[in-house]
Amino acid sequence: MTQTETQWSSEEKQIAEKALKTAYAREIQMLMDYVRESASGLCEIQDVWQLHDFLSARRHDIDGKYDERESFLLFTLSKLLQDKLLDLTELEGLAADKRAKLSLLIRM
Amino acid sequence: MTQTETQWSSEEKQIAEKALKTAYAREIQMLMDYVRESASGLCEIQDVWQLHDFLSARRHDIDGKYDERESFLLFTLSKLLQDKLLDLTELEGLAADKRAKLSLLIRM
Repeated sequence: MTQTETQWSSEEKQIAEKALKTAYAREIQMLMDYVRESASGLCEIQDVWQLHDFLSARRHDIDGKYDERESFLLFTLSKLLQDKLLDLTELEGLAADKRAKLSLLIRM
Repeated sequence: MTQTETQWSSEEKQIAEKALKTAYAREIQMLMDYVRESASGLCEIQDVWQLHDFLSARRHDIDGKYDERESFLLFTLSKLLQDKLLDLTELEGLAADKRAKLSLLIRM
C-alpha cells in the first residue's frame, strides 16, 4: 500500500483532522485519569519509579503518534483505530478506498 | 579536604548509615506527597509532562545521592545537610574533625 499515492480531498482532511483531535483528547483524558489514580495509590518509592517509567513510554508513544502529514495519515488513523481511540464510524465521509485500506491496516 | 584520608570508626559508620536512612525516608516521603498533590491537580497534558520532567530529574538526583562508600560519606552527608534532609544535631557522635569538615562543606 503506497501511502504517498493517497489523495485527500479538503473534506476528507477535515474529517481526519477532527478524528485525530477526538482521539488525542480521549487519550489525554485517559492518561490523566490513570496518573491521578496511580498517584493516589502510591505506597513506596518503586511505585513512583513505575509511574515515571510509564510516563516515559507514554510520552514517547504520543509524541510520534499523531502525525498529520497526508502521506502518513492512513497509518496514523489505523493506529488510533487499533488502539480503540477511534471507531471506523467516526471516519464516515472518507472515500471507500481509504476506508478499505484502513480496514486492512488495522488487521495487519 | 582529602576524603580518602578520613577514617570511620564502627560507631561513626552506624551513625552515618542511620542518618542516610533517615534522610532517604524523608526525601521519599516528600517526593510521594508532591507526586500525589501534583497528580490530583492535573488539568492539562502539559501538567503531566511537567510531572514527568520533575520525576526524571528527581530520579537522577536520588540515584546518585546516597553514596555510602566511606571515601564519599562526608560529601554525601554534606549534601543531605545542604538539602535540609538532615540536621547536624542528627550527626552527634561523629568525631569533632568530621563535624568541622561537614560544617565547612555545607558552606561551600
